[in-house]
Amino acid sequence: MKRWWLLLVLFSGALLADDCALRGTGDLAIVIERADGAVQIVETTHNTAIARVEGLGDLSHASVVYSRDGRYAYVFGRDGGLSKVDLLCARVEKRVIQSGNSIGGAISQDGRLIAVSNYTPGGVKVFDADSLELLADIPATWGNGLRSKVIGLVDAPGRRFVFSLWDAGEIWVADMQDPRHPRITRFRDIGRNPYDGLITPDGRYYIAGLFGEDGMAQLDLWHPERGVRRILDHYGRGEKKLPVYKMPHLEGWAVAGDRAFVPAVGLHAVLVIDLRDWRELARIPVHGQPVFVEARPDGREVWVNFAFPNNEKVQIIDVETLKVTHTLEPGKGVLHMEFEPRGEEVWISVRDRDRVQVYDTATHRLLRELPARKPSGIFMAARAHRIGL
Amino acid sequence: MKRWWLLLVLFSGALLADDCALRGTGDLAIVIERADGAVQIVETTHNTAIARVEGLGDLSHASVVYSRDGRYAYVFGRDGGLSKVDLLCARVEKRVIQSGNSIGGAISQDGRLIAVSNYTPGGVKVFDADSLELLADIPATWGNGLRSKVIGLVDAPGRRFVFSLWDAGEIWVADMQDPRHPRITRFRDIGRNPYDGLITPDGRYYIAGLFGEDGMAQLDLWHPERGVRRILDHYGRGEKKLPVYKMPHLEGWAVAGDRAFVPAVGLHAVLVIDLRDWRELARIPVHGQPVFVEARPDGREVWVNFAFPNNEKVQIIDVETLKVTHTLEPGKGVLHMEFEPRGEEVWISVRDRDRVQVYDTATHRLLRELPARKPSGIFMAARAHRIGL
Repeated sequence: MKRWWLLLVLFSGALLADDCALRGTGDLAIVIERADGAVQIVETTHNTAIARVEGLGDLSHASVVYSRDGRYAYVFGRDGGLSKVDLLCARVEKRVIQSGNSIGGAISQDGRLIAVSNYTPGGVKVFDADSLELLADIPATWGNGLRSKVIGLVDAPGRRFVFSLWDAGEIWVADMQDPRHPRITRFRDIGRNPYDGLITPDGRYYIAGLFGEDGMAQLDLWHPERGVRRILDHYGRGEKKLPVYKMPHLEGWAVAGDRAFVPAVGLHAVLVIDLRDWRELARIPVHGQPVFVEARPDGREVWVNFAFPNNEKVQIIDVETLKVTHTLEPGKGVLHMEFEPRGEEVWISVRDRDRVQVYDTATHRLLRELPARKPSGIFMAARAHRIGL
Repeated sequence: MKRWWLLLVLFSGALLADDCALRGTGDLAIVIERADGAVQIVETTHNTAIARVEGLGDLSHASVVYSRDGRYAYVFGRDGGLSKVDLLCARVEKRVIQSGNSIGGAISQDGRLIAVSNYTPGGVKVFDADSLELLADIPATWGNGLRSKVIGLVDAPGRRFVFSLWDAGEIWVADMQDPRHPRITRFRDIGRNPYDGLITPDGRYYIAGLFGEDGMAQLDLWHPERGVRRILDHYGRGEKKLPVYKMPHLEGWAVAGDRAFVPAVGLHAVLVIDLRDWRELARIPVHGQPVFVEARPDGREVWVNFAFPNNEKVQIIDVETLKVTHTLEPGKGVLHMEFEPRGEEVWISVRDRDRVQVYDTATHRLLRELPARKPSGIFMAARAHRIGL
């Protein structure tokens, strides 16, 4: 009798205590609840919440990358915390405090390395994706032993990471073939105060937005020997710049056909770049200072949200006419938008209403609202399969 | 005692009898073992085989699409069988014989509909993705009540399916907003004998290859009112055509930057199309009649395999120089290639050697071989998140 009882406890424990879900991971997503240091795990097939995971520290400006199997989310917190969250079992699998002040991260092309970019002390740390063991520490040194804040960290094909140094005005490429001995290539004098970076969806071009001057710095990773060139130089020339309440994000880099759509800093405008020659093709006036500029996956529309005090609206740009065709009003504090991977729906976080909204992208109709506490970023697991996300 | 025992059996049964794997689905893939009517389930993180599922009927020319959560593979067999395979539990969840002779299928943008294109009787059937209940039957009628073979079936944004009629020389667009009442738009006289179709990765352009004439038919789905236009007209003019042992596949449509790479029918050549004006930009001589022409996900290389009797090799084209830079020799019967979604490795099936090979795409080195019985198609679950795959 006693033995049976013991076995039963063991079995039921394996089933119930973990409370893990046997399910596919392709339609999972994470919603950051920034004020609570928590994330919600949601699914995008029926648009429901599945679970909540707490204890992730300071999640202001948090971002997320995914393991290549889609099971684990790596959450980068502002406090330097790096947490590996198991989406199936809804728990923190591992967690390290890797610096004093962090701003984002990336996962290598092969999924084996996690890189984190830090403000304090400035640099990049690289971890084993399984164990979160520290493999490499890359201090962002420049000048007389100073250390620069690091921003705009992305993965690139060939097991590389690319990032920018805010204080130094440099772009670095780290070749991680030997993860414990990164080989760094430095590009100096790329422009003043790069504030964010992005990589084109094919992983070829790295672009850093410059806060200290009007323009962007572009590096062709197929031809690093050609160096960094300036694009969109002086796009704000002669215009009165507005105070910048929130730095635009470049991660939501919108490429539609042979055009790219990027937020202008300090202007109420989206810039359209012709990708054939990297020149400004058009400038689209919008409701406020754009924060995220994202292409619907079929490239027919570009959706834009805005910085305070204009953050109650989302505008939709038609890619053929380059005009704003629709304006939605989700409510105050629209912080992020994420399209489902094939584009049929989009998720929008509305912080001040404590809601996440799901819209049909064909009709632009609101389909569903889910409660969430001060939601900010939304990150879908399908990012696992994309370069630079 | 008796009650405990019963409970124990129930619990252990739930755990063990199903033998389901608690794991992410993002790195799973299926290898078709065509001669056995079976599939292998493999994973691409450690490159190992996980399980084998039998009883899928005639899998010559089989293809696969994935549920949006990545858990289920829908396998389309030549014998009209449509099987829903659970990758986590390694079993056939549901199976229907939906026609006498089928050639491929697609899953709708929202993941709720499965469409199958049939030779006999010619047409398209649409099923509920959950239950495999038949929702719509679209006979491909033309002329005096004849029915045409249907080929080149793809999904398109806006819950549409697009396909071509081999005998009729037509392209049809089926709007599935109301799944039980498809709305069909017919495009007639698009050219003789469309043999396969593809859709660009953004879901905008549908292209049908024409076997009955030199050229391809193109439909802009953003502007169906403009009708179908001919592209690459007379690409084989004045050249002696070779006997065609195997029809090229257009599904492995290779877009790299603003160029597309497509197989020429009956020629030892890959055609390069300038996507800005859809004209032939170059013609690359290759080892044999190309079957699959696929871009590495970063767009820097295009990999090509060949029809009998040249099917022992794979050639690699450099996208910048448009030249063949490498030739691999996996062995007789190279039937398919599939890149991992971020492109670090590629899987190649080598039928006559009963092997699947995995290559590092940066070094072109063979990393691993897995045994497989007469392997043909390889389909990764990350396809769930792509338009047109």
